Amino acid sequence: MRAKDRPRSGCPIASTLDILGDRWSLVIIRDMVTGKTRFGDFLKSLERIPTNILTERLQRLESFGLIEKQRYQQNPVRFAYRLTKKGADLLPALQAVCIWANRHLPETRRPPKTFLALKPDDITRANRATIKY
Amino acid sequence: MRAKDRPRSGCPIASTLDILGDRWSLVIIRDMVTGKTRFGDFLKSLERIPTNILTERLQRLESFGLIEKQRYQQNPVRFAYRLTKKGADLLPALQAVCIWANRHLPETRRPPKTFLALKPDDITRANRATIKY
Repeated sequence: MRAKDRPRSGCPIASTLDILGDRWSLVIIRDMVTGKTRFGDFLKSLERIPTNILTERLQRLESFGLIEKQRYQQNPVRFAYRLTKKGADLLPALQAVCIWANRHLPETRRPPKTFLALKPDDITRANRATIKY
Repeated sequence: MRAKDRPRSGCPIASTLDILGDRWSLVIIRDMVTGKTRFGDFLKSLERIPTNILTERLQRLESFGLIEKQRYQQNPVRFAYRLTKKGADLLPALQAVCIWANRHLPETRRPPKTFLALKPDDITRANRATIKY
């Protein structure tokens, strides 16, 4: 574990930021909530994550147990990435962030009400790809 | 507005990270929720924020309207920093993060139940300094 990955304190907020405190990690998790699983799909999101950052963040999120990968193709090897229970349980925090942003950042679009009503357990089931955001 | 401060998309999650997506901003906001108002108090928190980062983040949070400062001393000039309504409304997101961290990061301490029951409007009233976290 690198020095920057060691928890700075026992504070739950600071400890979460030790893992997720950057501009990209929650964007990737958002994409997984809405059913994206492949490297190329994450690259296509509007925010245009750079390839090297995406590679690093996926490794990082996996090392913290928030996502897991599964090989879906040989030659070349390709992986599908999915949220673990630990990752899916971030949903209420993501929903709270959406509500805050919609109230205070006028340029943000509103996710469908169904997204705000979603529960973490809905994400870990087979209907992942049907979630509208 | 610097290029890195321009919203990357209309997504509420990405737009929030454009403002708060770093390891320190929410730590400062946490401190303000619990009644800290002064530069020196923020420096004393367990996470040991570096002075230059604290200066930059306070300016940044003020520029986005999340905090406001008020002079409480001349010679030398000193400011007290407080959350605006926009900043205080981040409380539900902070609470969701606490719940997630307490469930999934075993080394994190539990905030008092009163913290998890707090409403944003409680923060903007005079009892700010009495909030236990």
